[in-house]
Amino acid sequence: MTYNVLLHGATGETGREILDGLIEDGSFTIAALVRPQSVEKPATKALEKRSVKILVGDLANQTVDEIAALLDGYETVISAVAAGAQLDQLKLVDAAAKAGTKRFVPCGFTTISPPGGVMSLLRGDKEQVHERIWYHHLPYTIIDTGYWYQISFPRLPSGKVDYAMLGDHNTFVGNGDAPNLLIDKRDIGRLTARIIKDTRTLNKRVFLHAEVLTQDDIWAIIQGKSGEKVETKHASHDELVAKMHAARANLEANPSDTMARVAVWTAEYDVSKYVQRDNTPENARYLGYLDTKELYPDFRPITFTAFIDELLADKARKLYQDQFEFLHK
Amino acid sequence: MTYNVLLHGATGETGREILDGLIEDGSFTIAALVRPQSVEKPATKALEKRSVKILVGDLANQTVDEIAALLDGYETVISAVAAGAQLDQLKLVDAAAKAGTKRFVPCGFTTISPPGGVMSLLRGDKEQVHERIWYHHLPYTIIDTGYWYQISFPRLPSGKVDYAMLGDHNTFVGNGDAPNLLIDKRDIGRLTARIIKDTRTLNKRVFLHAEVLTQDDIWAIIQGKSGEKVETKHASHDELVAKMHAARANLEANPSDTMARVAVWTAEYDVSKYVQRDNTPENARYLGYLDTKELYPDFRPITFTAFIDELLADKARKLYQDQFEFLHK
Repeated sequence: MTYNVLLHGATGETGREILDGLIEDGSFTIAALVRPQSVEKPATKALEKRSVKILVGDLANQTVDEIAALLDGYETVISAVAAGAQLDQLKLVDAAAKAGTKRFVPCGFTTISPPGGVMSLLRGDKEQVHERIWYHHLPYTIIDTGYWYQISFPRLPSGKVDYAMLGDHNTFVGNGDAPNLLIDKRDIGRLTARIIKDTRTLNKRVFLHAEVLTQDDIWAIIQGKSGEKVETKHASHDELVAKMHAARANLEANPSDTMARVAVWTAEYDVSKYVQRDNTPENARYLGYLDTKELYPDFRPITFTAFIDELLADKARKLYQDQFEFLHK
Repeated sequence: MTYNVLLHGATGETGREILDGLIEDGSFTIAALVRPQSVEKPATKALEKRSVKILVGDLANQTVDEIAALLDGYETVISAVAAGAQLDQLKLVDAAAKAGTKRFVPCGFTTISPPGGVMSLLRGDKEQVHERIWYHHLPYTIIDTGYWYQISFPRLPSGKVDYAMLGDHNTFVGNGDAPNLLIDKRDIGRLTARIIKDTRTLNKRVFLHAEVLTQDDIWAIIQGKSGEKVETKHASHDELVAKMHAARANLEANPSDTMARVAVWTAEYDVSKYVQRDNTPENARYLGYLDTKELYPDFRPITFTAFIDELLADKARKLYQDQFEFLHK
């Protein structure tokens, strides 16, 4: 059986992994929804070379009916948009409802945290999209993931892993004992391909992860593998919470400042992961998520140690080469 | 095994049914959380005569720690507060988290509708309480119910059922073909007693209903049983939506006007039930609810026709004898 899938955001950091996973799986006919101004970009041209059909659509300027006409014939629509562009999906949801999409996968693909919790900005935006889905009774699957390995390792004193570093991850929170769901971002696409063919996941939240590690675990692995001692900073729970409140106040004072927005995302992630301990298998199950480890016990995810081996062998890839890509797709 | 249950709102329209259900079940030791100003009321005295322990607590003026001390020792806390008092539960949730409550049952007990949907006021308040529960990772069960038989029948020209009428239910919406979950409110307590002893319902939403009926079905039943022809008014979907927007605008202009608040609840219920068709078994399952018909196949709910027989035999009870009880418990 072949499934017609439309992917929105195919060239983004998550979208590229989903595209790879769908192509690797082999059971999908894939189209990408691309903005008019992106049609001539090399990244779009590269999609065409991989037999991805390009559908030109403009969520900002076209009507719901026009977008719905584009979606017609695709059973599944997957959206993987930039963190700052979540609410662009509202019109896409309206269009999918009109087109009779059989399964809409909104841009989840983030850590586990509850609606209305400390992840007020990113989770808050995503939940607004979910609410629009539910308003229409649109069939859906929400997929959330562990935090990426690729942004979960500390810098080494030698500078050896600087080539793949994004952000500062040398701050040890409290006792470093908060467990967190983690995953190699390349496995997100592979698991997504399975999820969207699976009737058990329809109208469900699903979480995917490879490992549950504390910062203490991560330090031990990278120090053991590299033979170097991580230069560690420390932060208390109270300091993280204070930083989060300051970041929110700053964004409120400067609502169009993109770096202020990034600071809120980062600070809220930290509080959610380390203070609230939201990003755990127990909390995912508590919040009603299905677990891909139970759904697909044969799936062998990339381990964190395997990733660290790659990283130390200079084979990792730095994310977000276009540094503003994650703000506005 | 005996379960210690604390019931908040035991004398309200839903709370009284829950209390009856718990007592009838026989496996519970029951306490009621009562405000200081209600201790001497006849309704409270009546609780004591039924072996319900009275715990005096004041959510408005006591601290979280003080409330938590009251909750200590009760595995299950059930909250059934007035429609206008939903947010009073926020402190109760904080206290339950502190006390280590094993199962918190917030005041759901309303029709199925999605978070963020048209039931912005009542469902919105309830979802705020859910978010507080999830913030604390507090074990919970959300119980929602069909619309009550007791407020689902039209007036008859003879005036025969006026003695038990609450509100105007003679308006036929569209073609009268929207299916709705319905239940006799007396069954809510019986099913709640089962749900809170059931490990399958922990950290889940559960819906309970007896029947799924359209207005067309209801008219046919009451006309067939009474031999009278219902005097029917008609409203279109557009009229209901317009009425809802007008009610919201009026409440916004008069935020402390309790009748303006009631008008929004009523108008939002109508749009949710008849235009959005939110209150159906399919939508409940779509939103992740478990179905008591599947959980407890042996349970025989009171049928709508049995209720109509009672009603026509002058044996029904008018709800909300204290007319402001449903606004402020």
